This record gives sequence, C-alpha cells and structure tokens, in this order.
Amino acid sequence: MIVLPELASSGYAFASEEEASASAEAVDGPTVTTWAESCRQLGVFVVAGICEQSAQGRFNSAVLVGPDGVIGVYRKNHLFYDEQSYFRSGDLGFPVFELPFGKVGMLVCYDLWFPEAARVLALNGADIICVPTNWVANFRRRVADERGWIMGNYAAVAVATQNQVFVAAADRIGSERQIQFIGSSCIVGPEGWLLAGPGPRADEALLLAELDLRQADSRKQRTPRNHTLGDRRPELYGELGQVSRPNPG
Amino acid sequence: MIVLPELASSGYAFASEEEASASAEAVDGPTVTTWAESCRQLGVFVVAGICEQSAQGRFNSAVLVGPDGVIGVYRKNHLFYDEQSYFRSGDLGFPVFELPFGKVGMLVCYDLWFPEAARVLALNGADIICVPTNWVANFRRRVADERGWIMGNYAAVAVATQNQVFVAAADRIGSERQIQFIGSSCIVGPEGWLLAGPGPRADEALLLAELDLRQADSRKQRTPRNHTLGDRRPELYGELGQVSRPNPG
Repeated sequence: MIVLPELASSGYAFASEEEASASAEAVDGPTVTTWAESCRQLGVFVVAGICEQSAQGRFNSAVLVGPDGVIGVYRKNHLFYDEQSYFRSGDLGFPVFELPFGKVGMLVCYDLWFPEAARVLALNGADIICVPTNWVANFRRRVADERGWIMGNYAAVAVATQNQVFVAAADRIGSERQIQFIGSSCIVGPEGWLLAGPGPRADEALLLAELDLRQADSRKQRTPRNHTLGDRRPELYGELGQVSRPNPG
Repeated sequence: MIVLPELASSGYAFASEEEASASAEAVDGPTVTTWAESCRQLGVFVVAGICEQSAQGRFNSAVLVGPDGVIGVYRKNHLFYDEQSYFRSGDLGFPVFELPFGKVGMLVCYDLWFPEAARVLALNGADIICVPTNWVANFRRRVADERGWIMGNYAAVAVATQNQVFVAAADRIGSERQIQFIGSSCIVGPEGWLLAGPGPRADEALLLAELDLRQADSRKQRTPRNHTLGDRRPELYGELGQVSRPNPG
C-alpha cells in the first residue's frame, strides 16, 4: 500500500476559482486512472489526494485505488484556511474499506486535529488510517522541536495511541506561493511508537514499513480487563455529537 | 498551581476491599483538609488524586483545592484494569472550574486515551487540563522510545494540540506489588510543545513552568479562518455520543 500526499495531482495553493477548477478531476479522470493502471500492473494499493470534481461539487479528496480499480473515496471534512474558498466540506462521512489485509480509513491533514474523526473510523473498524497531508509551516511560531519532530508527527502518534490503530501520513515538501510544506512523513504503530520517519523536512523521501494490520485489532484489548473502544462512556460524550460551540467561555 | 499524582493519598495497588476501604477519605477528610490548609497559608492551588469515599460510593478522584478550601472534584470516568474492582466509574461528568487565572479541567491517567474526555473539557471552556496519573510500565512491550519519552507524554501532547489547551500531568515513581510506575511527568503548551519534562522515570522531581492560560483561548483561533473547536462538524460525529461498540468489525 502506497500513500501519497494531499492534492498530489493538483498542488495546493490555488489563486483563483479558475485554477482550482482547471486542476480538478473526476475519480474516473486521468490521474486516478493512471494510478489504477499502476496498481493493476504492480499488484499494489494506493491512497492519494486529488482535487476532485464531482456532480456534488469540488472536494479535497483522498482516493483508495487497488488492482481492480477505485475502491473508495474520502472527502476532507475539516477544511483548513483558504481551502474553504475552493472546496466543499466532505459529504461522505468517515468511510472504512475492507481490503484483503485489513480495514482502511482515510483522513486528510487538518482532520488529525479533530480526534472525533479518527475515533469514528476506529469505531467503524479501521485498522489503519492513511493520511495524505500538506502540513504547512505557516501560522506556527515553531515548526519543529529539538528532535526534529513537527506537530503533525505528534498528531499522528496521538491518533494511533488513542485508537490503537496504524497511521501512515504522507506529506509533501517544498513551497508554493508563500506556503511552506514541511515533509516529515511518518508511519506509526498501534501502540503509538513510530515505525518509520519522521522523513526529511525539505527533501524527497520514501518511508517503508512492514505492517501486520491484525495487530491493530488485538491491541484494542489493552489488558485482559480493558478494551480501548469498549471502555468508552458515550453517555458522557453527548455534547461531542450534538453541540458546536465556536466560542466556549 | 501544584499538581500531584493519582491516588496520592492512598497508593494504587490495593489487594483487598478492606485495604481500599481503609485508605479512602471523604473530600472533607484529613488529607484534603491538610492540602487546603497549605493552600491557604501559601496562596496556591492544588490538584491531586485521592481515594474518595462518598455517599455515592468509592471513586478514584482528583480534587481541586485553593486558598478558600475545596473548589471541585472530578471522579475518574475511565477505570483501568483492577481499578474496576475497587472504584465506581465517575458520576460527575467532566466539570470545568473557573479560577482567577483561567479555567481548569481535570482528568486521571487512562482518561487521556479517550480523546472524547479532553474534548468535552475543551468545549466546556478549559484552558488547562490537570492530570494526576499513575502511568504503569505493565502491559507494554516498550516503555519508552530512544528519546526517553513514555507513551503518556505523547498522550498529553495529543490532548494539548488537539484542543489547544495546556496540560500538566503529574506521575508517580517507584513500584507497588508488581506494578511499576514510570514518572516522566510533563507540562505541555497549547500548541502541543513540551514546556517542562519529561521528568525522570525513577527519581523524584519537581517540574516548573510559568503559564499564561489566556494563550489557550487565543490559540483556539488557529488561523484567521480556522477555529479549533468551531471547525468541528458534530453532525458527522453522532456515533461518538450514541453508540458503544466493544467489538467493531
């Protein structure tokens, strides 16, 4: 399974509606068709970000493609900054797709700061969450700590340890119209420890890890008396599903 | 504000109902009364764990005490392993208490693995989450990474970055009846970066940081177009509040 960054087919920093529109493609368009052909030839799966044009509008989407073609689409539910000008918010919820080797969920970038998103995927059975991302340096006082980790790495670890799932986050590098991307892709195991990365912040890189996705399921039983998802107390969380308060306090 | 570990008054590893009962105290009992007297003399606030005996039963609780006495109680909502034999699950939800310098929520140890808990505190306006904890080495294949961080440190960072709040987690050291505690207390800022710690794993330590809790509120506005809590899409999270599925998939 190969994970590529967010908006891998289009770039990120649109300057106009015309640009966004020109770079948008349908899920059966040339980019995804090319990926599907490679998957067929190589016997692999791909999760990657595209600027998706659909009958419902334009979305910042991740597609899951395999040897038999397109398996599923996730449309980013939490849009960051100027994405709000160019994309509709996702309208497909948080789907999970069953592959021969495990169950796959997808999130995109800023979604990782909404623990609700990964939690819903875990409740839907995801063993791995693949995260095409375009992590940016902008708006941050500090990009990395003395160990060289960016906050996206911590966010990926968070999702893994809180849900006992694998996380594979692929970021881009370089800059585009004042926006600086910071690489540091990572693969995290279901205990939360990093299995690969963080990758370099400014150079291309390929991170590799061999994963047994069944570990995610067994890890949910944290101890003989504890189950990560079963120990939840949803009767106390009602607010999470029901109330949105932009300005608490 | 001083944060002490979970069950600081009683120890953790009860071997019998009698032991648990004998070490339990009411919130107006001698331990908390002593803390309150110190708070009055020193003009400080304390968050600390006690084995609480109440009319509702026995709880693994955190108390918030100040110069004028007891301000509030949090009763641990997610019980870990044998705690299930000695404590009732919390029955007070996730309260937030307003102090002169900011709004304080409390969680205890295993609660950090339930992102719903911190999220509800953040939605209720918490600027800082104080976490009395007894992090254990048991049940883990790996206690710390090559940098010396335990997974509790990552869990604390997770809660901070996902909610843009401060987190102050105080752990104990030493061992008690086969259970090994692993210190590594930490204080985290609202961007997710560590401000102090991780403390030592096997020695006593005092971690200090000067915090301006107003930063938590300003950080929630991550960019001019994004608000950490306001960008939530609760219409997609209904499952979090409503469905508990111990065996997904």
